[in-house]
Amino acid sequence: MDRRSFLRNSALGGAAAAGTLAAPAYAQGKRTLTLVTTWGRGLAGVHDSAQRCADSITAMTDGQLTVDLKAAGELVGAFEVFDAVTSGQADMYHGADYYFVGQHPAYAFFTSVPFGMSAQELANWYYHDGGHELHDELGQIFGIKSFLGGNTGAQAGGWYSKEIKSPEDFNGLKFRMPGLGGKALGKLGASVQNLPGGEVYQALASGAIDGTEWIGPWADEKAGFQEITKIYYTAGFHEPGAGLSLAFNRDVFDSFTPAQQKICEIAAAEAHQWNLAQFLSQNGAALQRLAAGGVKLMEFPDSVWDAFGQASMEVHQENIGDDIYKRTYESVTASMKSSSGWIQRSEGAYRTQRDRVLGG
Amino acid sequence: MDRRSFLRNSALGGAAAAGTLAAPAYAQGKRTLTLVTTWGRGLAGVHDSAQRCADSITAMTDGQLTVDLKAAGELVGAFEVFDAVTSGQADMYHGADYYFVGQHPAYAFFTSVPFGMSAQELANWYYHDGGHELHDELGQIFGIKSFLGGNTGAQAGGWYSKEIKSPEDFNGLKFRMPGLGGKALGKLGASVQNLPGGEVYQALASGAIDGTEWIGPWADEKAGFQEITKIYYTAGFHEPGAGLSLAFNRDVFDSFTPAQQKICEIAAAEAHQWNLAQFLSQNGAALQRLAAGGVKLMEFPDSVWDAFGQASMEVHQENIGDDIYKRTYESVTASMKSSSGWIQRSEGAYRTQRDRVLGG
Repeated sequence: MDRRSFLRNSALGGAAAAGTLAAPAYAQGKRTLTLVTTWGRGLAGVHDSAQRCADSITAMTDGQLTVDLKAAGELVGAFEVFDAVTSGQADMYHGADYYFVGQHPAYAFFTSVPFGMSAQELANWYYHDGGHELHDELGQIFGIKSFLGGNTGAQAGGWYSKEIKSPEDFNGLKFRMPGLGGKALGKLGASVQNLPGGEVYQALASGAIDGTEWIGPWADEKAGFQEITKIYYTAGFHEPGAGLSLAFNRDVFDSFTPAQQKICEIAAAEAHQWNLAQFLSQNGAALQRLAAGGVKLMEFPDSVWDAFGQASMEVHQENIGDDIYKRTYESVTASMKSSSGWIQRSEGAYRTQRDRVLGG
Repeated sequence: MDRRSFLRNSALGGAAAAGTLAAPAYAQGKRTLTLVTTWGRGLAGVHDSAQRCADSITAMTDGQLTVDLKAAGELVGAFEVFDAVTSGQADMYHGADYYFVGQHPAYAFFTSVPFGMSAQELANWYYHDGGHELHDELGQIFGIKSFLGGNTGAQAGGWYSKEIKSPEDFNGLKFRMPGLGGKALGKLGASVQNLPGGEVYQALASGAIDGTEWIGPWADEKAGFQEITKIYYTAGFHEPGAGLSLAFNRDVFDSFTPAQQKICEIAAAEAHQWNLAQFLSQNGAALQRLAAGGVKLMEFPDSVWDAFGQASMEVHQENIGDDIYKRTYESVTASMKSSSGWIQRSEGAYRTQRDRVLGG
């Protein structure tokens, strides 16, 4: 499809087309940009990172670009943000790109893939080992310009109605897990659902699902899952460092001045770090509160991790026929292998000694 | 001392005083800011983060603030940058704040202290648990406005002319190590020297020092220490996540518009993340090259780590009588304790399983 023709002929394409035609004028005045998100308003951490991006861009441009955040459901639904931005209905979205594996499976890598990178490994890859360039290549297909703009850190294994003692316990379990992690869980016989964050509590409370992962102690506590079940698996295989994306309609982005483009890039990157630090600053105390409130902190047994690993590799193999997916997978794997050895040998060895000498 | 009087009467105070008197005019035109650094031009990673800060601010302000970087020795010496900025001779510095423990011992915390925080723990504390506010409080004393603006990650234990088999091996060893780590090493009997990065190679090559820590595989390889000795300790106790600072003369910073101030804040924070990812992206391959070139990768024995721990706690105790040092130490410790439990239970447990399932 010729996307530019589509934009010119579409009622939704007005904002983007105007951006293309009259770019210089925008530099003089003030312009309001609509940012749609995959997050219900106020969802702990994830909404905050979207708001951080919006506020930073507005402040740094002195309002020349004033970003107006519309949370999930306020303009379009959580999973409609991608189409809203590619069509020009909205100027920008903030969300988890693995919601859009239906558009392209390689989008999974820009959130997190099972047995993939930690948040730090994602940053290493994205900013220095070719990750952002691959994000750009995907964006060219759909007419968007994407940046990492948030990160939750390693996500918890999630909330379960029963203990998981073997891989067979997933058979028939109705579980919320998006992205490629969910596809792996499906291979273990789970009935996997992909609900946006704002709809998970109700689904769990009503019994529509037997369990869910969401993020980690702080965001999960705010969502209230501990009111429904007390069985909480802390480490998970599915999102070891989940990046969140800030994406612009490409015609809109191209209409910005170079200084404005740089502001958007740097604002998103800053939000990535700020948000990760926010989650990690909050999670420790939240975990203690959850435990004090009777939540049972669990670890999956090795047999379950082995099954997660097997299923995850099968999911990667199913997608590897796609050229961009294959190149992205190989790029991620090479970067991770290169950086993880030093991280283990320096910070890893240091942490072991710090715990030993200071008593953990 | 009344610093404002000093500035008005000082030949060095011209730029800062002008900033105070004529702030609104600056918002209209273009203004060149002099950034002095503690890094020799081109020193891998550390110079890059200073340049990143300079380039981002210049680009985001469309040159309204054009940052002119003067590396160590080009305007003032590496260790003179703090005084150059407080006096108004330069507008900004980029450097490791632990070089300035003579000005105030609490500056050590904004680089790294022995048995202190990892780079991620530093970010958690700085951006969400009160760290930046304490940096600000220190800055009020000296008339500067500081931000984290780079990070090397966990630093290597360093290069030695002989193997270290027990704490006694430090007795009489001439070793380069700045900050509180160096003070701890002094308690083990080492003769500790505090040289800027650009002078270390020559000191090691000439035998003026027996050993040195610098940063990690990539920066150390670029500096060429492997040409002098092949004994390299990979994990170290002294800088587990070394932050670098971007600091402004406060009168200069106060003369910026709110948008320009926000640009400086966000540019520095982005450089912190970008630089850490840069080091971690480069260190793995550099470590392999060093090992292939005959460098022997070593770990200190537990007895040495125990001695490092004991000496480090003694150094903290010597400074704890200072009110800001005490509050900073307590703030750091509380944040680290809170966040490290979850990090170990989530990302730590995940990494162990990833290594086990995928075979490391």
